[in-house]
Amino acid sequence: MSELTTRLLAGLPESAVVVDPAVTAAYRQDMAGFCTSGEPAVLVFPSTVEQVQHVLRTASGLRVPVVPQGARTGLSGAANAVAGCILLSLVKMDRILELDPVNRLAVVEPGVVNAVLSRAAEEVGLSYPPDPSSWESCTIGGNIGTGAGGLCCVKYGVTSEYVLGLDVVLADGRLLRTGRRTAKGVAGYDLTRLFVGSEGTLGVVVGAVLALRPKPAPQLALAAEFADPAAACAAVNAVVEAGLTPSLMELMDGVVVRAVNKLGRMGLPESTRALLLVAFDGAEPQRELAAVAELCRGAGATEVVPAADRAESELLLAARRLALPALDTLGTTMVDDVAVPRSRLADMLAGVAGIAERCGLTIGVVSHAGDGNTHPVVVFDADDADQTARARESFDEIMALGLELGGTITGEHGVGLLKKEWLARELGPVGLDLQRQLKGVFDPLGILNPGKLF
Amino acid sequence: MSELTTRLLAGLPESAVVVDPAVTAAYRQDMAGFCTSGEPAVLVFPSTVEQVQHVLRTASGLRVPVVPQGARTGLSGAANAVAGCILLSLVKMDRILELDPVNRLAVVEPGVVNAVLSRAAEEVGLSYPPDPSSWESCTIGGNIGTGAGGLCCVKYGVTSEYVLGLDVVLADGRLLRTGRRTAKGVAGYDLTRLFVGSEGTLGVVVGAVLALRPKPAPQLALAAEFADPAAACAAVNAVVEAGLTPSLMELMDGVVVRAVNKLGRMGLPESTRALLLVAFDGAEPQRELAAVAELCRGAGATEVVPAADRAESELLLAARRLALPALDTLGTTMVDDVAVPRSRLADMLAGVAGIAERCGLTIGVVSHAGDGNTHPVVVFDADDADQTARARESFDEIMALGLELGGTITGEHGVGLLKKEWLARELGPVGLDLQRQLKGVFDPLGILNPGKLF
Repeated sequence: MSELTTRLLAGLPESAVVVDPAVTAAYRQDMAGFCTSGEPAVLVFPSTVEQVQHVLRTASGLRVPVVPQGARTGLSGAANAVAGCILLSLVKMDRILELDPVNRLAVVEPGVVNAVLSRAAEEVGLSYPPDPSSWESCTIGGNIGTGAGGLCCVKYGVTSEYVLGLDVVLADGRLLRTGRRTAKGVAGYDLTRLFVGSEGTLGVVVGAVLALRPKPAPQLALAAEFADPAAACAAVNAVVEAGLTPSLMELMDGVVVRAVNKLGRMGLPESTRALLLVAFDGAEPQRELAAVAELCRGAGATEVVPAADRAESELLLAARRLALPALDTLGTTMVDDVAVPRSRLADMLAGVAGIAERCGLTIGVVSHAGDGNTHPVVVFDADDADQTARARESFDEIMALGLELGGTITGEHGVGLLKKEWLARELGPVGLDLQRQLKGVFDPLGILNPGKLF
Repeated sequence: MSELTTRLLAGLPESAVVVDPAVTAAYRQDMAGFCTSGEPAVLVFPSTVEQVQHVLRTASGLRVPVVPQGARTGLSGAANAVAGCILLSLVKMDRILELDPVNRLAVVEPGVVNAVLSRAAEEVGLSYPPDPSSWESCTIGGNIGTGAGGLCCVKYGVTSEYVLGLDVVLADGRLLRTGRRTAKGVAGYDLTRLFVGSEGTLGVVVGAVLALRPKPAPQLALAAEFADPAAACAAVNAVVEAGLTPSLMELMDGVVVRAVNKLGRMGLPESTRALLLVAFDGAEPQRELAAVAELCRGAGATEVVPAADRAESELLLAARRLALPALDTLGTTMVDDVAVPRSRLADMLAGVAGIAERCGLTIGVVSHAGDGNTHPVVVFDADDADQTARARESFDEIMALGLELGGTITGEHGVGLLKKEWLARELGPVGLDLQRQLKGVFDPLGILNPGKLF
């Protein structure tokens, strides 16, 4: 038995320490393509804060890298193993410790699955809005690590807006408590938000105080078909300029619509070049949808189909949720995640279409249009080296285009391994220098998820 | 002429450099009581980013402390001069550079007055929600420095939720650009939020990209009178538990009501021990107010007075805005700013009443009740040393009580000089250690607003 394993077992039950390579291999990667991973030394499943502290103290003592993991549904390789590391899975720490309707908050362990928390909140008349596509399996700890978004963000914002306070085990094993349980608070620097999106490079989140909201009314949706993506983008901007606040505003291009039809037999119009879904969950969804329908027609929609009721709305939203699985049936996929100012969405879509043509690849784009957050999905044959190289190239060109349009290389998926060369380009030298120095404060030995982000 | 002044004049126009002690003395302090200030060496009014960079480079070169200032309406002494410092006033950098309705954002210089931005946004159908009491004079840079709140926060949140990106001049004069212009973005650590509430101790904000919202409907309000503050707090909790989202939920105690009546001849019932104001700005304010009225009666309200129209609502809100000026007429005042979990509001109010009695002082409490954010205002005779000592004592006891109830020493006013001994108590040793180390990254020479926060 290695010294590492021996030391770990001094503070962890035997069942929580796995060295069998057949098992650990299954935990090497998250859902990102193109990303490498190394062979982990050991996989641990702590179930208490003290056990996590023991793991970090051991890792610091032996200078062994630690890679924290949730459900490994991430799309940037942030949870991928590095050679010789401790894979620190938080999935056994999955308790909801408190659900407090008066203070509208939840206190949770990091391994709680997003959907489990969302449903528990609903049972007491509340909601936890962040809803990444993987919400049925992804964990709150992973959501915090990546700063996850979802479909709801156009109205309800992203994960960071719901994190009030954190318990974090630092690299040296100390326990840090950040933030608060109150609605407001400005005592000292905002360390809480520094950890959100930090991808396990600053510490290991072992507990979170999350803000909840009142449960909204069920969404009512409409679909609008366009022969031209730019017209759909004009409709998006018109909705925003009209002061409307939809609870969802999603755009699928023709590639996505055809793929969704094929997989789900959704009966969406194959001829469409852009399908816009808009939903409201306020007091007067019909009135608001009528206004949106008018704006869509004004922008050139060829057809506007309001859902008759909640069931029809659900069907439209289900079509959207099928987008990524449907594209996956076409080949190997690489999901990009570039956000641009909403006003540049049409330029982004046109640019991606140009990249697809130039690279000779299929690229379907599904967008959180209300946030200007696009997910161009590059489809390629991974067994074809030339196609794979062109896929990689187009993936990079998409990020370059996003930056050129005043956007960011990642709206909600994070940097991880996948985009670390690009982070420097987005941040610039001064920003990068400070971010590196911050990393040094929290992780002087460089053991926390090394090689990620930078 | 001192070397400092000579060097400053090499990069600033003569009119922007003030050394006349009669003038600089007027800029020594913000609005906090109990806080000391030192004699500044020089007061500068840069009007460009380059000039601010010159000031910081000069300060770094000569190891001279720099104290950034906005309108000096702060309540914690964060903008107070330290001996021999450069007072760096940003009030001349007061341009709104962009107002963008499609992307719902504004780009501003730090000296823009909150009300000026708010009104400009309204003119294009948008709103900038953060509304501290001093909104007619405070600056956006100051709001960012303190992480300012206001009356709207119960529905719309605090300043940090509206800051998308910042331009910051660092201690060594380098220009850092943080964040983004997009609705979403998770590229690297969230430096933007680290600067919000950092009170000029990490860098000097010289530009901000701010998120705007659609302009809401005018507020419709009601007032509910209670013979018992605990009953009013029960009503607050009942409103929250019912899933309602008021745009304002403010509570004044009997001391405040009497003072407001005296100053404003508001005709509020003098017998009341707690006056709750609740407003809505959604689609159906009448329906929501009717529900609140019912909940207030259920919690024991002695009277519920719904405003008949917008004008009457404005009158109720004007009474609330008079609270601090009215208390100021009673003597010297010290405004505390303790936020507790909403469910502990009644305990907080009862505890403050006990402290007032024990210390033999008048303490009026006005609360952003929906956020659990209380402002106990200690009234005393500053010429009476004994009263002043008791005031200081009660001020501290109020913070101790807040922490005991699971709250924070500051919900929205900040730490500055006033509460720096208490910050350590709230953060604990691990948190304090990390915060100090972060400060060291940004300000290795210790020239940025030294002695504040820590």
